[in-house]
Amino acid sequence: MKVLVVNCGSSSLKYQLMDMKDERVLAKGLVERIGIEGSILTHKVNGEKFIVETPMDDHKEAIKLVLDALIDDSHGVIKDMSEISAVGHRVVHGGEKYANSVLIDDEVMKSIEDCISIAPLHNPPNIIGINACKELMPSTPMVAVFDTAFHQTLPDYAFTYPLPYDLYEEHKIRKYGFHGTSHKYVTKASAEFINADVNNYKVITCHLGNGASICAVKDGRSIDTSMGFTPLEGVAMGTRSGNIDPAIVTYLIKEMKYSIEEVDHLLNKQSGLLGIYGVSSDMRDVKKAAYENNENRAKLALNVFHYKIKQYIGSYTAVMNGVDAIVFTGGIGENSPENREAICENLDYLGIKINKAKNINAIGVNTDISADDSKVKVLVIPTDEELMIARDTKDIVSNI
Amino acid sequence: MKVLVVNCGSSSLKYQLMDMKDERVLAKGLVERIGIEGSILTHKVNGEKFIVETPMDDHKEAIKLVLDALIDDSHGVIKDMSEISAVGHRVVHGGEKYANSVLIDDEVMKSIEDCISIAPLHNPPNIIGINACKELMPSTPMVAVFDTAFHQTLPDYAFTYPLPYDLYEEHKIRKYGFHGTSHKYVTKASAEFINADVNNYKVITCHLGNGASICAVKDGRSIDTSMGFTPLEGVAMGTRSGNIDPAIVTYLIKEMKYSIEEVDHLLNKQSGLLGIYGVSSDMRDVKKAAYENNENRAKLALNVFHYKIKQYIGSYTAVMNGVDAIVFTGGIGENSPENREAICENLDYLGIKINKAKNINAIGVNTDISADDSKVKVLVIPTDEELMIARDTKDIVSNI
Repeated sequence: MKVLVVNCGSSSLKYQLMDMKDERVLAKGLVERIGIEGSILTHKVNGEKFIVETPMDDHKEAIKLVLDALIDDSHGVIKDMSEISAVGHRVVHGGEKYANSVLIDDEVMKSIEDCISIAPLHNPPNIIGINACKELMPSTPMVAVFDTAFHQTLPDYAFTYPLPYDLYEEHKIRKYGFHGTSHKYVTKASAEFINADVNNYKVITCHLGNGASICAVKDGRSIDTSMGFTPLEGVAMGTRSGNIDPAIVTYLIKEMKYSIEEVDHLLNKQSGLLGIYGVSSDMRDVKKAAYENNENRAKLALNVFHYKIKQYIGSYTAVMNGVDAIVFTGGIGENSPENREAICENLDYLGIKINKAKNINAIGVNTDISADDSKVKVLVIPTDEELMIARDTKDIVSNI
Repeated sequence: MKVLVVNCGSSSLKYQLMDMKDERVLAKGLVERIGIEGSILTHKVNGEKFIVETPMDDHKEAIKLVLDALIDDSHGVIKDMSEISAVGHRVVHGGEKYANSVLIDDEVMKSIEDCISIAPLHNPPNIIGINACKELMPSTPMVAVFDTAFHQTLPDYAFTYPLPYDLYEEHKIRKYGFHGTSHKYVTKASAEFINADVNNYKVITCHLGNGASICAVKDGRSIDTSMGFTPLEGVAMGTRSGNIDPAIVTYLIKEMKYSIEEVDHLLNKQSGLLGIYGVSSDMRDVKKAAYENNENRAKLALNVFHYKIKQYIGSYTAVMNGVDAIVFTGGIGENSPENREAICENLDYLGIKINKAKNINAIGVNTDISADDSKVKVLVIPTDEELMIARDTKDIVSNI
């Protein structure tokens, strides 16, 4: 069975075609600048790159070009669109309705649309992508894989904000959590890697990329996570503030005369590493400035970044009353030994100790970087959200 | 030396006269409804209560009545105002300037006024109180004891928000922390109580009252605390939300059309225990509803309250790489065994275990409630902010 995985942003589209027989990636690619001048499709097959620069007015045109690329005589990987047995769509917000992936029908579409009010930035492009695929492949089953689904197991005391209760009951303001597909994937992959029983396993998964979130997973179920009602909450990220005193938001508006749009932009686009360092949100730039150029603001940005993650590790160790493994994943988590070392430093009271040599050599591959005498396993586990989406899609479609 | 301790709110004033020879409270009391119809002074001496109901237009009139009560023939405790050697004022916000208490002069007054911009609700009544005392006792030295001072030892990575750095540099938006006098007091008192060396001592102090904050104190220095730029940040409180996704604030304004004043009111006055339970912010009411009447919303409010504190205990244990003692103080911390038990439940991985019988009997007195096999001491230590203010005042005045 071949499954196409689609992840639509507002002006971009990532895709991956997988053969589920051996979970092999046949082709993958990225469309950028959809509906903007300079639209471009980058298609990769067997390490080779094919670029198509042509105007694309909307996501439907983009997906049409993707399908053309997949069946192209020279760089295609299938003969005919009918070889695609199903499409798996990443959908950011499933609200409280979806704790699992689901076959898309009219009712599901309606639910995803209902979530627009609480995910105004994220769900609309996902919906556009699904509709475009449905038009082009009307008889192919489509599956929605939600970023929030894995966290629907949070207990009420973890997802309820200390706010007037009708904001939850009537307006659905609660913690949802995101990156669920990734946290779920590395939970399972890490348990397999160390031969642990995932049903008797306390793990803290640190998905650290430009967006970052931490998750406490007990016996395979997410019991808490750092992102909240939106992906703004939690640790400091590339450009997002994460947690701050909520009174700062009102202070910026009331005392400093920011508009609500300016505050949104400030918290989402100008904060985090970029805010403190002031020059770049890219971890590689921040590390270079801190470690090579000895720049104080870059060092401070890193220290804050590490400190917040360390605090979540402590917090989640407490609420699970212990931890068997810490998992690092995501662009930074998988590829940055310096960050992992700083985060794990001085945590031996919690039983966490890394082997520095193993840590330095662990770049993008499953690795146990724990010290021999570490009570807790510290692991690098590359995430694979696309594979997770493809697997869920295959499972659901196989049971139709 | 006799020291008068004054704590001015916007329409209230608490006072206490202490003889520093033996740190005995000679008299104490409370003035309420200053400048409002129904002004009332409640004055207590040796367990006896004297009530004065008379109009008071402002804090100066209130303080005049306090002084009259202190020198009154029947219920007074001193012959003459000149017996008061110094006045110690609680001042909420000392900004970054004051890491210690200070003798009040014009420059200090100016600094306290400068902090109004970042503490618009709190510093103005403190200033009014100081000025009123200065007018009535022009030759008596006055000392300012800041709620923020103890936390000025926070490292930069703990006090810096992941926001554009100029918000800190130019607008002083950073974590300050509050309840410093209490956290400092119970740090010292708890170390003495268990014969620990405060300079080699990791303690997490939980000041739990209607307002609540947690503090990580390492070797006598505050290294992190849950309140932030304002006293809104941190754990869930009686009516304050504590930490929430900052995007909820903008959501309430943008999508739900709240005014900025309504949001302020919601987060400060309608949230926390009151918000979730919906009926009362008083812990006694919430406990009764949860434990006696089995009300689900009250139980949820308690669970959230406990959960957030548990998370801070874990977080601070991580950043100190260990903990020697957990201290409970404040109205709830000192007097509510049920809350202490729920907070400490299932924390044995961190070395924290309480003795339930000892815990139940510990009401408002210094008590070690740890289980015999607890690695970490769990202590109930009643706070005494007035004594702390009086001691600082005496020390400073003695060195003039």
